[in-house]
Amino acid sequence: MSDLRAESKKTAAKQKKRTEIELDELGDWRRTHYSSNLTPELDGQGCVVFGWIASIRHQGNITFIVIMDKDGLIQVTAKKDEVGEKLYEKIQRLTPHTSIGVKGVLKAIPKAPNGVEVRPQEIKVVGYASVNPSIQLYARKLPSLDKRLEIRAVDLRRPAAQAIFKIRQEALKVIRAHLLKNGYQEVHTPKIISSATEGGAALFPLLYYNKEAFLTQSPQLYKEQLVMAFEKVFEIGPAFRAEQSRTLEHLSEFISVDVEEAYVDYRDVMSRLEAIVREVVEVVKNKCAKELAILQYEPTLPDTFKRFTYDEVLEILAEHGYKVEWGEDLSSAALAKLAESNPSYYFIIDWPTQSKPFYISQKKDDPKLSESFDLIFGSLEIASGGTRVSSRRVLEKRLKEKGLNPKSFAYHLKVFDYGMPPHAGFGLGFERFLMTLTGQKNIREVTYFPRDQRHLTP
Amino acid sequence: MSDLRAESKKTAAKQKKRTEIELDELGDWRRTHYSSNLTPELDGQGCVVFGWIASIRHQGNITFIVIMDKDGLIQVTAKKDEVGEKLYEKIQRLTPHTSIGVKGVLKAIPKAPNGVEVRPQEIKVVGYASVNPSIQLYARKLPSLDKRLEIRAVDLRRPAAQAIFKIRQEALKVIRAHLLKNGYQEVHTPKIISSATEGGAALFPLLYYNKEAFLTQSPQLYKEQLVMAFEKVFEIGPAFRAEQSRTLEHLSEFISVDVEEAYVDYRDVMSRLEAIVREVVEVVKNKCAKELAILQYEPTLPDTFKRFTYDEVLEILAEHGYKVEWGEDLSSAALAKLAESNPSYYFIIDWPTQSKPFYISQKKDDPKLSESFDLIFGSLEIASGGTRVSSRRVLEKRLKEKGLNPKSFAYHLKVFDYGMPPHAGFGLGFERFLMTLTGQKNIREVTYFPRDQRHLTP
Repeated sequence: MSDLRAESKKTAAKQKKRTEIELDELGDWRRTHYSSNLTPELDGQGCVVFGWIASIRHQGNITFIVIMDKDGLIQVTAKKDEVGEKLYEKIQRLTPHTSIGVKGVLKAIPKAPNGVEVRPQEIKVVGYASVNPSIQLYARKLPSLDKRLEIRAVDLRRPAAQAIFKIRQEALKVIRAHLLKNGYQEVHTPKIISSATEGGAALFPLLYYNKEAFLTQSPQLYKEQLVMAFEKVFEIGPAFRAEQSRTLEHLSEFISVDVEEAYVDYRDVMSRLEAIVREVVEVVKNKCAKELAILQYEPTLPDTFKRFTYDEVLEILAEHGYKVEWGEDLSSAALAKLAESNPSYYFIIDWPTQSKPFYISQKKDDPKLSESFDLIFGSLEIASGGTRVSSRRVLEKRLKEKGLNPKSFAYHLKVFDYGMPPHAGFGLGFERFLMTLTGQKNIREVTYFPRDQRHLTP
Repeated sequence: MSDLRAESKKTAAKQKKRTEIELDELGDWRRTHYSSNLTPELDGQGCVVFGWIASIRHQGNITFIVIMDKDGLIQVTAKKDEVGEKLYEKIQRLTPHTSIGVKGVLKAIPKAPNGVEVRPQEIKVVGYASVNPSIQLYARKLPSLDKRLEIRAVDLRRPAAQAIFKIRQEALKVIRAHLLKNGYQEVHTPKIISSATEGGAALFPLLYYNKEAFLTQSPQLYKEQLVMAFEKVFEIGPAFRAEQSRTLEHLSEFISVDVEEAYVDYRDVMSRLEAIVREVVEVVKNKCAKELAILQYEPTLPDTFKRFTYDEVLEILAEHGYKVEWGEDLSSAALAKLAESNPSYYFIIDWPTQSKPFYISQKKDDPKLSESFDLIFGSLEIASGGTRVSSRRVLEKRLKEKGLNPKSFAYHLKVFDYGMPPHAGFGLGFERFLMTLTGQKNIREVTYFPRDQRHLTP
């Protein structure tokens, strides 16, 4: 790896802009092997491989090319006397990041990736890199995130980015498999809505034909409605918040993992959430050891997720000299204090009713408190949920208390007349969860194309 | 079933609005069995079941309640002399659609659903239906779709709707499993974008902080970019079209199944698409026989998907007296003619370049034609795709030809300088595909909460 790092540094330095060379047609060439299929046992067999050039190094009359395909690295070794004048000349013009196809013969070589290299007979240049990116693949010091986002598609070729998105892929698979296995139905609800669910502040307005509409902040009301007919539902999809804050943990568009279930309360869905987080962390540790090594990060998992009540948290903070007004949300500073002794996952439950949205149920024995929870990792809130209000009368009252107009929610309130079951659920911020799985401090690093106040492209 | 139909008709007729009754708390009651877990072998065992009342029938001193949970029906039989005066009185006040919990004893009864019924000892009314919906569960003649959409969450309780969304769930699972098994990575790309991909006509504008932005019509450009780093990607997510047409096949917000792959051309991805459709139809036929029976529909699957060229289609249509100007899109009437001899899935390939978006590649031997395809079912277009342009120079030229400004696409064009591989892909309209699997003529029937020119709620 360190060899590669040094090489990529050298090749990166060479030139800025090149003249485009004639591209070869893909034609009937098709891949015979991915890097992951290559083993020394294939020695002597023919192959066609594809990838982009991670490094190219000329040494006397030999050129070593390392290409990267979606599974890993392949070494291509071209000796002038073997490949002939014409192909060798073509090889000399190859540039890092150029996409090539290589037809050749496999040769077992202990020191090559997967113990085998390709001796090329023919090479097709199918995507020429005329510009050399400033991003060095293996460098520890990278250009600023803003610079990298400008060519995000290229930035994502870095092994560290590949590792992050491999972990993302695994996490997504485990979450969905867990929910399907436990009888939840995957649903898709509208992203264009007529009224705010979490209050009006952070909404993106849009023109829907001739009407004003908004982008949804969460599928909250729709997933609640769907438990009437399907009982257990989940959705993994985009949600939108016009956040004014420029923090490391906010996106304007994020992926929300939403779960809702009938005939249960907040304690049941908390257990479900804990089980999901637990399974994801375990699978990632097992299946993504290589990727975690690249990221130099080890996800943690407490034996049990502690469940502090909001009141307990206030006491703990008071002991440390942090005064929080009862009813207020917990500031980053307060959570950071709490994180000192709770660096991994834990719950804060039973929040003041006034601090939670209108659809969260009050506690029967103390209406000032709600049947609610947040899942926190250190000082990062990654999920929240609770028992929902299932009575129309109570819902109307709560809407008014929050200064919202029940008329704007008529389409929603209406269905509560038809036997809405008690229900509970949660929303998990997928990117925030990924931060805890990959050790990334900036949420943009775990997002393919992040959207925030400053980034509307790419 | 016909019994139930008659009953539900009777109960539906009874009353319109009722006074709310006191709700019972869910408390510590938790479900012991779903309907799908019930078998006659459980005779004599205790149980707690939950569901909403699909029908209730009083016969002398016996009340028969049928509740529906997410998996099916459970019969609850209350005999006055067994349950006692107080519970029997409570049962008399139950209404259709009310959600209840029943604690009782299971009794094997040959004629009951699953061969077993519940003899109640205690009943909790956890969600009271104070209004009786005009929608009859088993009726063939239903209120208008508009009426039903007003209380869509209740409408979705109909067995026919349940069947549709069970098939939806299966189709979604099969598509995703197929793609994951074949090495595609699931991605999520931004829904808020800065410029149109399919031309500017059908865009929803929105205010993104202080800038103008749009809702994406497809993840086209983003999925293309992502093949640079991940080679094989897919996304299943919302896409938005401000369609002015009020047809049975258009939604303003739909779920698009997008696939993109490097180092292949349109014929490869056509084969992939055919394999997916084939697998979904086969699984649905196998696993959803009961649901298809409810819908009285049998999905069809031709031995091979025919591949007509656009030119061939024009010839066939000419033979039938349909004149289509070369270069024009095919009208519904033209496709309907074609559907007469091709009622199931088939491809139309090699469309005129002028009829396809800027990112579709021209044929090398005839640039008037493009390496493109549509997948059609009868006369319904359900997917389209093609080989993509992978050269920046060509892309800029094509943008200009389409009257689009390359400057608006600078963020996209830029990455083509860094070794963009040749690639191809397709987008499948998931709801349209579902129409072909369920026999529904109106796309709104296969959508949880449809969005169109007239429906922004629920």
